[in-house]
Amino acid sequence: MLINIKEKEIAYMFNFHINAVDGETRSGIFHTPHGDIPTPIFAPVGTQATVKALTPAQLEELDASLILANTYHLYLRPSDDLIAKMGGLHQFMNWQKPILTDSGGFQVFSLAKMRKIDEDGVTFKSHIDGGKHRLTPEKAIAIQENLGADIIMAFDECAPPYDQTYNQEAMQRTHRWAERCLQAKTRPDQALFGIVQGGVFPELRCKSAQTISDMGFPGHAIGGLSVGETKAEMYATIEIVNEILPSEKPRYLMGVGTPKDLIEGVRRGIDIFDCVLPTRLARHNAAMTRNGRFNMMNARFAEDENPIDPNCSCYTCTQFSRAYIRHLIQAREILASTLLSIHNIHTLLQLCREMRQAITDGKFNSFAQQALDTLTKDHIR
Amino acid sequence: MLINIKEKEIAYMFNFHINAVDGETRSGIFHTPHGDIPTPIFAPVGTQATVKALTPAQLEELDASLILANTYHLYLRPSDDLIAKMGGLHQFMNWQKPILTDSGGFQVFSLAKMRKIDEDGVTFKSHIDGGKHRLTPEKAIAIQENLGADIIMAFDECAPPYDQTYNQEAMQRTHRWAERCLQAKTRPDQALFGIVQGGVFPELRCKSAQTISDMGFPGHAIGGLSVGETKAEMYATIEIVNEILPSEKPRYLMGVGTPKDLIEGVRRGIDIFDCVLPTRLARHNAAMTRNGRFNMMNARFAEDENPIDPNCSCYTCTQFSRAYIRHLIQAREILASTLLSIHNIHTLLQLCREMRQAITDGKFNSFAQQALDTLTKDHIR
Repeated sequence: MLINIKEKEIAYMFNFHINAVDGETRSGIFHTPHGDIPTPIFAPVGTQATVKALTPAQLEELDASLILANTYHLYLRPSDDLIAKMGGLHQFMNWQKPILTDSGGFQVFSLAKMRKIDEDGVTFKSHIDGGKHRLTPEKAIAIQENLGADIIMAFDECAPPYDQTYNQEAMQRTHRWAERCLQAKTRPDQALFGIVQGGVFPELRCKSAQTISDMGFPGHAIGGLSVGETKAEMYATIEIVNEILPSEKPRYLMGVGTPKDLIEGVRRGIDIFDCVLPTRLARHNAAMTRNGRFNMMNARFAEDENPIDPNCSCYTCTQFSRAYIRHLIQAREILASTLLSIHNIHTLLQLCREMRQAITDGKFNSFAQQALDTLTKDHIR
Repeated sequence: MLINIKEKEIAYMFNFHINAVDGETRSGIFHTPHGDIPTPIFAPVGTQATVKALTPAQLEELDASLILANTYHLYLRPSDDLIAKMGGLHQFMNWQKPILTDSGGFQVFSLAKMRKIDEDGVTFKSHIDGGKHRLTPEKAIAIQENLGADIIMAFDECAPPYDQTYNQEAMQRTHRWAERCLQAKTRPDQALFGIVQGGVFPELRCKSAQTISDMGFPGHAIGGLSVGETKAEMYATIEIVNEILPSEKPRYLMGVGTPKDLIEGVRRGIDIFDCVLPTRLARHNAAMTRNGRFNMMNARFAEDENPIDPNCSCYTCTQFSRAYIRHLIQAREILASTLLSIHNIHTLLQLCREMRQAITDGKFNSFAQQALDTLTKDHIR
């Protein structure tokens, strides 16, 4: 009964309107208390309450409509209590549009110095100072309620993709934790998404998709992908899961962010993506374009007056040459990271805009084929 | 004769209109091919063709009207030849407003690994790769003509402030080099400023100011200050020199940039300042305010919802709390440098705006006294 009331409140604030469908692919608008998210959408990652090297004003200029922040990092520093005191994450980082926080689960398993899992939760040591901490489903929800993002995530366990026994255990624990997250949640202005796990094992993914779907979350995520499995396995898993996840609710593919994966994900019915890739590549001198990646430190750009991508309309490409970007990299100037982050995020957001238009026009397949043909492999040239 | 024609061309492009005079203090407009510079003005420093951590768009938002770039750095990397090929410094760094380049002299004496001075010029080793290079007055002008700044500087020798014998030699060489710079200069769209040297020695400063004034430069700079002498010596030197420098031409105090020194400089007839201080302090977590400097990493700011300076109208202060800035510093996020650079540059530009208004209103002395009273010492609190 309690859950039913909550569900109604959530459904009211978090309507997902699908405007156009083209095969498995769809385009729509996900309404949140901090504004509308047009889908398919890519969410830049602001791990520590800042998308690295960018001001919120620059993110607004990029027309980002959703950003992600990391519960694990913010819990450890500056702490969710402090952020709550400061009026919540939107106010703290001065981002008034939608925010999604992950549950901290993935980071505990990938970043923490030590971790010990039991049925109730995880004990781990901070990667910052080695301090001992404990996360449980209830604690992960409490932290995310302190942070106050629009979309919050159930606490899950992400297992290595090829260990079937461990994946089965982790998946079952993730399901039990998902129930506890639903029970723990109190804020009506946050949508809690469930996470499907199960590694590369179709029967586990089916089971997980069915179990999580049955719990009545207002949206669903696919976790445990882009963590070492092959592209073929990733795409097959998305297909298996999306066939089961209810199509009327948003689907979020966690941690995925190459242009090719965005296209392949949307083709299979994904609505939301996030990834550190565009900003991380920027800090490693790489430009993401619709023709593949480029190492902007390459000497061939030294006297190149062209923008990174002549077809790109971002601030970086309309105002600066490859030669200047290369100089900034050589001179180890912070501006290199800023300009490349702007460009890389623009590349993914522009791809999403074009995919939405193609879906609306009923031309997604031809658009996707053409876009994939111009993309070379995801290695840096 | 050749110089006379040049002087006329330069006078046409580089008119200096003094609008208001209040004692030694004056306010005016210095016209340049890339726009007008209202004076008194502070010029942020873009050493390597970028004001560190800021985009040109952010500098425009700050209403910076003049920036400085370093000849020594740009000559070594990416080279003035490359910048010339790319259309000059304005185009290369995408800054369409006035630029001033120094002559490279000061950096050769302060940064290069080795230097050997002779009558013709200086041989030195690059601080980047140890490569051997040579600068002469003619070469310094040729590099600055390749860079294409609006205001360029004569090649000078900056001696330690208290060595009288060396200062006399260096000053005399600086005078001979100044003549050679005037002869070497060919571009009519650049104003070449002469530099007064002479350490802390009044008789040398008088001699230098007179000699440089007699050469007919369209503007004059005071070099060799803020390099270890006392504040009293600095202010006394400015007074001695400005009594001799022609009042109808702009006066530029090189490398000076605390709020107190700007006020004391303007009080003594200085029109232009530059300094790395606001951006360097920003990268070391310090905020410059009209009430002194603050170390924003200080734990007392951890839960402080106020802006850095409640009276400041910059992007940083209107949008972000001290608590957030401190978090960014603790988390070693690039955005900390960006937000503090914006604030610190704004502090100096706003001080200049207020000084111009006070001069126009004939109220500079009371304004200066009030501003100095609220400033504590220039140590970080």
